[in-house]
Amino acid sequence: MKILITNDDGIYSKGLRAAVEAVKDLGEVYVVAPLFQRSASGRAMTLHRPLRAKLVDVPGAKVAYGLDGMPVDCIIFALARFTDFDLAISGINLGENLSTEITVSGTASAAIEAATNGIPSIAISLEVSREKYKFGEGSEVDFSTASHFLRKVARAVLRGGLPEGVDMLNVNVPDDATEETGIAVTRLAHRMYRPTVEERVDPKGNPYYWIVGRKCREFEPGTDVYALKVERKVSVTPINIDMTARVDLREVERLF
Amino acid sequence: MKILITNDDGIYSKGLRAAVEAVKDLGEVYVVAPLFQRSASGRAMTLHRPLRAKLVDVPGAKVAYGLDGMPVDCIIFALARFTDFDLAISGINLGENLSTEITVSGTASAAIEAATNGIPSIAISLEVSREKYKFGEGSEVDFSTASHFLRKVARAVLRGGLPEGVDMLNVNVPDDATEETGIAVTRLAHRMYRPTVEERVDPKGNPYYWIVGRKCREFEPGTDVYALKVERKVSVTPINIDMTARVDLREVERLF
Repeated sequence: MKILITNDDGIYSKGLRAAVEAVKDLGEVYVVAPLFQRSASGRAMTLHRPLRAKLVDVPGAKVAYGLDGMPVDCIIFALARFTDFDLAISGINLGENLSTEITVSGTASAAIEAATNGIPSIAISLEVSREKYKFGEGSEVDFSTASHFLRKVARAVLRGGLPEGVDMLNVNVPDDATEETGIAVTRLAHRMYRPTVEERVDPKGNPYYWIVGRKCREFEPGTDVYALKVERKVSVTPINIDMTARVDLREVERLF
Repeated sequence: MKILITNDDGIYSKGLRAAVEAVKDLGEVYVVAPLFQRSASGRAMTLHRPLRAKLVDVPGAKVAYGLDGMPVDCIIFALARFTDFDLAISGINLGENLSTEITVSGTASAAIEAATNGIPSIAISLEVSREKYKFGEGSEVDFSTASHFLRKVARAVLRGGLPEGVDMLNVNVPDDATEETGIAVTRLAHRMYRPTVEERVDPKGNPYYWIVGRKCREFEPGTDVYALKVERKVSVTPINIDMTARVDLREVERLF
């Protein structure tokens, strides 16, 4: 079995190394991951400049490249260089990735890119409290329970494949989970954040603006947000990459 | 009616100005668009640094801000500052945005962000031949037919709203379209590009890598790619932002 691992926190992130450790005996592990922190990079691709690649030592991986690009670039690079993966894993991300806003996440977007190439894929994220969150590093964070669930999900996918119509699994683990924590199969919540803008004034008196992601407080049962935030369960959401609305197309034709 | 317009080619792009001209008499037009070219930026958000905003003169707009961020940042900024839009338009993009790979596009991603906020939205893109494509500018490109179709679609959405289950319309106009060209309501093709990597060697003898998007040659009837590339019709694809796979969740539960 050939397993590709990437992330958006960067190749030196503890979460990526935990992912490698979790699955290294399930197959040959190839790592291609960004050299730098690329959180919230979406499905951005680097088309306007070339990329550099650097061999990095990642214990447990057959080979590991750091790329000075985006998570999606890493998938493209890996497929061009190594081909034929049985599974792609993106993570373990520092911080949860939930709701239809997962397309903001570089972690989820890398898994979506792999899925577009027909590779069953898993995006996995660990809820992290604000205190423990160190931007792109996470040295204070314990990934052992998330590793346990990644291993469980990866094994299941390698053994049975994904059900018809499922391209990818989006997995989120609560920060207080143990190996006994239950798994909830969920749908994406409508949203998780309600981003807004905070205006400040620089030392010269000119305004500048921070994008701020305020968390929504509505939790709807059955969603990934509800499973993680209310039930404190591990959420697994089956994803299909096709966003075509499932409506009678004649209803749309009637508009014009 | 309040209409928000953004794009990913930047606020000085001819396509954005054509979009403003197309709808300026359907409502009050607000423009918030990136100051710089942001093609293929996906749904990236700028969270690690603050943004600057600059008032720009865009004929036909009530107000126009250029932001040194991403298309999605522009939507967030616009909603924080102006609120209550009846319609969001992203485009007119220089070059088509087709297939499930639209989530790579900053144009489509801005419309998705607006849709997440409950605003009916339209992403509109004009097929552009390689010869006419000037990165981020497009001064050689004639947007008049695309403007005609944008106006037609925008009017329909402002009048009747989007059908239940449709969050956004993704519109693509062939480069040889006329006002008589037919509209095809389509689904997203599986993919449009098959990206790969081209290795080169720098003057010092070290390798570097270009991501190259090779176009797929398979065209499946009913898809946006087929409508544009084979039928030479204007493609309109209804989009739902929820990527949860429409499968029996018990099939997924059985995996674990």
